[in-house]
Amino acid sequence: MRPSKRAPDELRKVSLERAVARYAEGSCLVKFGDTHVLCTASLEERGPPWLRGTGRGWVTAEYSMLPRATLERTRREVTSGRPSGRTHEIQRLIGRSLRAVVDLSAIGERQIVVDCDVLQADGGTRTAAITGAWVALHDCLAWMKARSMVQGEALKDHVAAVSCGIHAGTPVLDLDYAEDSSAETDANFVITGTGGLVEVQGTAEGKPFSVEELMALIELARAGTAKLVDLQKMAVM
Amino acid sequence: MRPSKRAPDELRKVSLERAVARYAEGSCLVKFGDTHVLCTASLEERGPPWLRGTGRGWVTAEYSMLPRATLERTRREVTSGRPSGRTHEIQRLIGRSLRAVVDLSAIGERQIVVDCDVLQADGGTRTAAITGAWVALHDCLAWMKARSMVQGEALKDHVAAVSCGIHAGTPVLDLDYAEDSSAETDANFVITGTGGLVEVQGTAEGKPFSVEELMALIELARAGTAKLVDLQKMAVM
Amino acid sequence: MRPSKRAPDELRKVSLERAVARYAEGSCLVKFGDTHVLCTASLEERGPPWLRGTGRGWVTAEYSMLPRATLERTRREVTSGRPSGRTHEIQRLIGRSLRAVVDLSAIGERQIVVDCDVLQADGGTRTAAITGAWVALHDCLAWMKARSMVQGEALKDHVAAVSCGIHAGTPVLDLDYAEDSSAETDANFVITGTGGLVEVQGTAEGKPFSVEELMALIELARAGTAKLVDLQKMAVM
Amino acid sequence: MRPSKRAPDELRKVSLERAVARYAEGSCLVKFGDTHVLCTASLEERGPPWLRGTGRGWVTAEYSMLPRATLERTRREVTSGRPSGRTHEIQRLIGRSLRAVVDLSAIGERQIVVDCDVLQADGGTRTAAITGAWVALHDCLAWMKARSMVQGEALKDHVAAVSCGIHAGTPVLDLDYAEDSSAETDANFVITGTGGLVEVQGTAEGKPFSVEELMALIELARAGTAKLVDLQKMAVM
Amino acid sequence: MRPSKRAPDELRKVSLERAVARYAEGSCLVKFGDTHVLCTASLEERGPPWLRGTGRGWVTAEYSMLPRATLERTRREVTSGRPSGRTHEIQRLIGRSLRAVVDLSAIGERQIVVDCDVLQADGGTRTAAITGAWVALHDCLAWMKARSMVQGEALKDHVAAVSCGIHAGTPVLDLDYAEDSSAETDANFVITGTGGLVEVQGTAEGKPFSVEELMALIELARAGTAKLVDLQKMAVM
Amino acid sequence: MRPSKRAPDELRKVSLERAVARYAEGSCLVKFGDTHVLCTASLEERGPPWLRGTGRGWVTAEYSMLPRATLERTRREVTSGRPSGRTHEIQRLIGRSLRAVVDLSAIGERQIVVDCDVLQADGGTRTAAITGAWVALHDCLAWMKARSMVQGEALKDHVAAVSCGIHAGTPVLDLDYAEDSSAETDANFVITGTGGLVEVQGTAEGKPFSVEELMALIELARAGTAKLVDLQKMAVM
Repeated sequence: MRPSKRAPDELRKVSLERAVARYAEGSCLVKFGDTHVLCTASLEERGPPWLRGTGRGWVTAEYSMLPRATLERTRREVTSGRPSGRTHEIQRLIGRSLRAVVDLSAIGERQIVVDCDVLQADGGTRTAAITGAWVALHDCLAWMKARSMVQGEALKDHVAAVSCGIHAGTPVLDLDYAEDSSAETDANFVITGTGGLVEVQGTAEGKPFSVEELMALIELARAGTAKLVDLQKMAVM
Repeated sequence: MRPSKRAPDELRKVSLERAVARYAEGSCLVKFGDTHVLCTASLEERGPPWLRGTGRGWVTAEYSMLPRATLERTRREVTSGRPSGRTHEIQRLIGRSLRAVVDLSAIGERQIVVDCDVLQADGGTRTAAITGAWVALHDCLAWMKARSMVQGEALKDHVAAVSCGIHAGTPVLDLDYAEDSSAETDANFVITGTGGLVEVQGTAEGKPFSVEELMALIELARAGTAKLVDLQKMAVM
Repeated sequence: MRPSKRAPDELRKVSLERAVARYAEGSCLVKFGDTHVLCTASLEERGPPWLRGTGRGWVTAEYSMLPRATLERTRREVTSGRPSGRTHEIQRLIGRSLRAVVDLSAIGERQIVVDCDVLQADGGTRTAAITGAWVALHDCLAWMKARSMVQGEALKDHVAAVSCGIHAGTPVLDLDYAEDSSAETDANFVITGTGGLVEVQGTAEGKPFSVEELMALIELARAGTAKLVDLQKMAVM
Repeated sequence: MRPSKRAPDELRKVSLERAVARYAEGSCLVKFGDTHVLCTASLEERGPPWLRGTGRGWVTAEYSMLPRATLERTRREVTSGRPSGRTHEIQRLIGRSLRAVVDLSAIGERQIVVDCDVLQADGGTRTAAITGAWVALHDCLAWMKARSMVQGEALKDHVAAVSCGIHAGTPVLDLDYAEDSSAETDANFVITGTGGLVEVQGTAEGKPFSVEELMALIELARAGTAKLVDLQKMAVM
Repeated sequence: MRPSKRAPDELRKVSLERAVARYAEGSCLVKFGDTHVLCTASLEERGPPWLRGTGRGWVTAEYSMLPRATLERTRREVTSGRPSGRTHEIQRLIGRSLRAVVDLSAIGERQIVVDCDVLQADGGTRTAAITGAWVALHDCLAWMKARSMVQGEALKDHVAAVSCGIHAGTPVLDLDYAEDSSAETDANFVITGTGGLVEVQGTAEGKPFSVEELMALIELARAGTAKLVDLQKMAVM
Repeated sequence: MRPSKRAPDELRKVSLERAVARYAEGSCLVKFGDTHVLCTASLEERGPPWLRGTGRGWVTAEYSMLPRATLERTRREVTSGRPSGRTHEIQRLIGRSLRAVVDLSAIGERQIVVDCDVLQADGGTRTAAITGAWVALHDCLAWMKARSMVQGEALKDHVAAVSCGIHAGTPVLDLDYAEDSSAETDANFVITGTGGLVEVQGTAEGKPFSVEELMALIELARAGTAKLVDLQKMAVM
C-alpha cells in the first residue's frame, strides 16, 4: 500500500483553472493534490537578440517556489544571488517540453515566457508545472490568434508530464512528497497527446534499476499523461 | 471624480482570507481590489546570530512580486542577482510596522519571517501587505501560544496601512495603479488599532505639498485604517 | 536637556564650503557638527538610455560612507558586492529631493550625478547630504549656464533637509548620533526654500506617535530648513 | 552512414590514462576520440558541515571546460560570476553516478571531490567524464585503503556512461559533436558493471520518439558501457 | 622640460596632516600635489580566522577612489559588484609594504586595517597612499602602546613610496597624471627609512627599458623616498 | 645548496610543445619542471568595443588553475563568483608582456585572447605562462599571416619570463614551490629576445633587499631568459 492510499496507477486529484491572472495573455492554476503551481504565459514583442532575422519565435520558461511553499521555509534564491542548479534544470526542462509542441515559425519573432511559480509543494512540482504551462500557453496562443499574430496552427499537440517511481518494490504513478522521499527510483516523463516521448529522466536513488522496471514506469506514465491530456482538453474547451 | 469612481474617502473592496497556506504557522491572502498579496508567517526556532543571549525574539519580512503580477511582465530579481532598492525599502517597512505591535520579549529567542508575495499588483501592494501580514502574524502567534511558546501577550495591538494621495487637487484614499500614476503627492501611513502613527511617508511627485494637505491625508488615512482594523478583527474572530 | 546641550530648536554648527573638488563641475563640503559629507556634481553628456528623444535631462544621486566614517569601522559595500538597502533608500531620497527643484527640460538630454560621500558620520548624514548637494548642483548648473548649456532657469528653488525626533518626550531638531540612538520617534523632512514639503518620513522607534507630535516636528523642521536655506544663500552668493 | 564513418554500435577510440596528476589521490585522463577530460579525485578530510555526526562520507563532482576546448572560444564562467545551468546539471549527474557505486559509510566522514575538466570537447563530455571519474575515484579509494582509511569494500561496482541518439533515423552509439548537432533524439545512459541503470535521460530534439526507439537506444548503451567497463578493468589492473 | 616644470629629481609639494579622522585610531591626509588620499588605521580586536592561535597580528589595507576624484567621473566599484584588478593590486601592495616594517608578533592576535581613500587623483595615488598610511599606522600603534597593547617595538622602520618614469628620454621623479600618461617607462618603488628595497615594479609602456635606465630610476627613488621619510619624521614628531 | 639541488643559475628542465590543442589558432604546452601550463591563442574577429575605428588590434590574456593543480585542492574561482586579486594581477601581467612585442596595428581590429590554464603548479606559473604564451601567439600570428590577415611583421621580438629569488642568502634562478616558499626575496622578470626589460617586479618577503642584490637577480634573469628564448626559437623552427 502506498502512503497516499492511492492505487499504483492512480493520479492525485488534478485540477486546471484557467484565466486566473488578470494581466497575463494566458494563465492556469494547476493542482496535483497539494501541489499548486501558478502558470502565466507572457507575450513579449521583443525576443532574445539571437532571434532577430530568423523569422522564428521562442518559448521559454522560468520556475520558482514561494519560500513557504514547503514544509520548512526555504530561503529565497535572490538572497544567494543566483538560481540553484535544481531551478535551472527544471526551467530548462519546462521550456524544452513546451517547444516540442509549438511551431516556432508560426508566431513570428516574438517570445513567450511561461512563469511557473509554485505556491505549495507536495512533490511533482515540475510535472504539474509542465501540465499547467501547456494550458497557459494554449490561451496565450489563442489570444495572439485573435489578434492575427499567428500564422497557421502554432500549437501542434498537447504535452503533459507525470512522475513515476518504484516504491517498496512496486511501480507507482504521480508520487507525492512522502512517496518521493522513500522511492528507490524516481522518474519523470514528458509525453505528447499522441503518445510520443519528449523527455525521459530516470534516476536510481538507491540501487540501480532494470530495463524491465523502466518499462513498467513508462507504461504507467503513458496512461497517466493520457488522463492529464484529457483534463487539458476539458479545461480549454 | 477619481478614475476608480470611488468617493474620495472610499477604500477598495478589501478581503482577508486566513489559513490559505498548508504549511505556514499563519497565513492570509489579502485583497485590496485587484491587488492580491499572499502573506505567510513562518516560525524559525533559530533566529539571527545577534539574537543569542538577548532573551528576545525578532519579526522580519520579505517582499517580492511574481513576474506577471504586473501589466507588463517584470524580470525576476534573482536574474539580476539582487533585490532592488524598492524591494529593500518595502520589506524593511513591513518588518518595522509589525515589530511596532509585537512584544519581542514574549516570544523567546525565535524569529518569525513574514513573506509577502504579490500575486497581482494594482497599486498599494505595500499597504495591503502590512494589513494582511498582521493577520498571518496573529495566527502564527496563536499557533505558538497553543504550544506554550509565548509568555504573556505577544501581540499588543493591530496595525494596518493605507496609501493616500492628492489626485486632481483632491485628497483621496487607497489609490489604485491608475490613480497612483497621476497623483501629485503620494503618501503611505501605517497606523495602529488605537490610532497611533507608526510610519508616515509623504512624497511630492510634482510640486511640493503644504502642511494643510498633509493633514487632510492623515485624516483620510486614520479613517481608512480604522476600517481595515475592523476587517482584521472580523477575520480573526 | 538633550545630550548635545543644544536648545530643542537649535541646529548643530553648519558650514557649506564650495569648490572643494578640483575636477567636479560643482562641489560642496557640508558639515552639520561632526557629520561631514563631500558632495560633487558631475555633468555627463550621455544620460541613461531612456532619456533619449525626450528632450529632458535627469538628476540622480549616489551615497556612500568611508569605512572609518563611523565609530566602529564599517565594511565596504563592494566587499559584499551590493549596496545595502539603507544606501539605496538614501540615494533615492537625495535624487528625488533635488529633482523637486530642478526644471529637467532646461538642461537638455544630459545627466547630472551628485555623489555624496560621508567622510565622517555623527547622525543626520542624509539630511546634510541633501543640503550640501543643493550647493554642488547649483554650481554645476552655473557652470553649464556659463557654457550656454541651460535654457531659461533650471533651478527653481532651494531645497534643504533636517532630521527631527522626540527625545525624552521633547521634540528636538537636528539629532546627532547619540540623540538619534535614544529617540522615540525619528523623522526626516525635505523642504523647499518657499516652505513646501518635498518629503516627510516619520518612524516610531518604540511606541507610536500622535498627530500632534508630528505637527510639532514639522514646525521645528520648517524653522530649521529655513535657516539652512539662508546658509545656502550665503554660500552661493 | 554516420558522419564519423563508424558503425552504429561502434564506440570512438577510448583511452583511460591513470596517475596523470602529480598531487591528486587519484586521476585519469580519459579520451573518447577527440573529447579529452582530465579527472582528478581529491580527498578532503573535512566534508560539508551536514556530514558531521552521520558516520558517512560524501562523493561530489565539479565540471568545467577550458575556454578553447571548443571550436569557438567559450567565455569562462567566472567572468559571468556563476556556473551555467548546463554546468550544474552535468556536475550533479556525475556526482549521483559515482555515489551509486560507492558505500559512503565505508569512507568515514570524509569527502572526495572529483574534478572533471574538459581539455578538448567533441561531444559526449559528460559521459567521458563519468567513465574517467570512476578510474580516478578507484585510485583515490585505493590510496585511502593503503592508509587504512576505508572499512570494508567502498567501491561496490563499476559505473560508465555513454550517449546514444537517433541520427538520420538510425539509432547510433557515442555521438561526436557533428552527430550530436544533427541528431533527432539525444540520450545519455549511466550503467553499472552489472548492467543496472543508474541514470536514463532522453530528450527529443525535434519530433518526439517512441518507446521502441528508446529500447533500441538502451540496447546500444548496454553494449557500449559493457565495453567501457572492460576498458576500466584493464586500466586499473 | 617636464610638463610640471619640476626638475627631474623634484618631488611635488608633499604634506602629511595627522589626526584628521575623529574615530580612527590613527589617520593621515596625505597630499602629493593635487593627489589627496585620506588614510585611516582601524584596530580590530578580531583578526581574520587564520590568525587564531598564532600569537601574531596582521596589517592589511583597502584602497578606493571617490567617483569624482578623477577628471571624468568613474563608476563606483560597488555598481559592478567587485573591486577591479587594479584595486586588488594596489591594496595588496600597500598591505605588503606596511607589513615589511611591522613586527606582527608585537601586536598580539589583532588586525589593523588601513583604509586609503583617494579624494583627488593626479597620478601616484598608490605611492602617496603608502607614504600616508605609514603615518596612520604609526599613530594607531602609538594609541595601542598607550593602552599597553604592544609588546616591545612594533614599528621597525619607516616606509615610503614614490613613482619614477622615463619621460621624453629623461628619468624623472614623482610623475603627475599628465607625465604618467606620456611616460615610456613607469616604475614604483617602496623603500624603507634605512634605504632597503621593499617593492620594485617597473613596466615598459612602449619600448623595453635597459638595466642602466632602471638603475637611474632607482637612484631617483632612493633620494625621493629619503625626503618623504624626513617629512614623515617631522609629521610624527 | 638549494632544495632542488640545482646550481644557482640553473633553470628547471623546460619544454615547449606546440599545436597541442585541436581548435586553437596557436597553442603550447609549456613545462618548467613540474609546472605545466596549457596556453592557447584564440583569434576573435570582434575585439572589445573600444577598438572600433582605431585600426588597431588587441592582445589579452586570461589565467586560471585547475583545482587540483596544487598540493591541496584549491576552490574554483567561479564558486566565489569572481577571479581573485592574484588572478587579475597575473593575467594583466601576461597581457602586457605579450603586447610589448606585438605591433597591434599589423593585425587589424581583431583580438587575440591567450588562455593560460595551469594543469600542474610547482612555482613560477606566471613566468612559464608568459614563455609558453609567446609560442602560442607566434603560431596564431602565423596562422593569420597564411590567411593574409597580417600587414607586415606583427611579432617584433621574443619575450620570455623567469623568477629569481634570494634563497638562504644566495641569488638563485627559476624557483620551484619549495624554494619560493622559503625565499627572502621574490622577483619576476619579463625580458625580450634582445635583452630589453619589459617588467621587473621584486618583493621583499622578509627583510628588505639591497640594490646590489637586485642587480644580481637581474643578471641571473638575463641569462635565464636568453636560454628560454633559445628554446622558443627551436620550438617554432
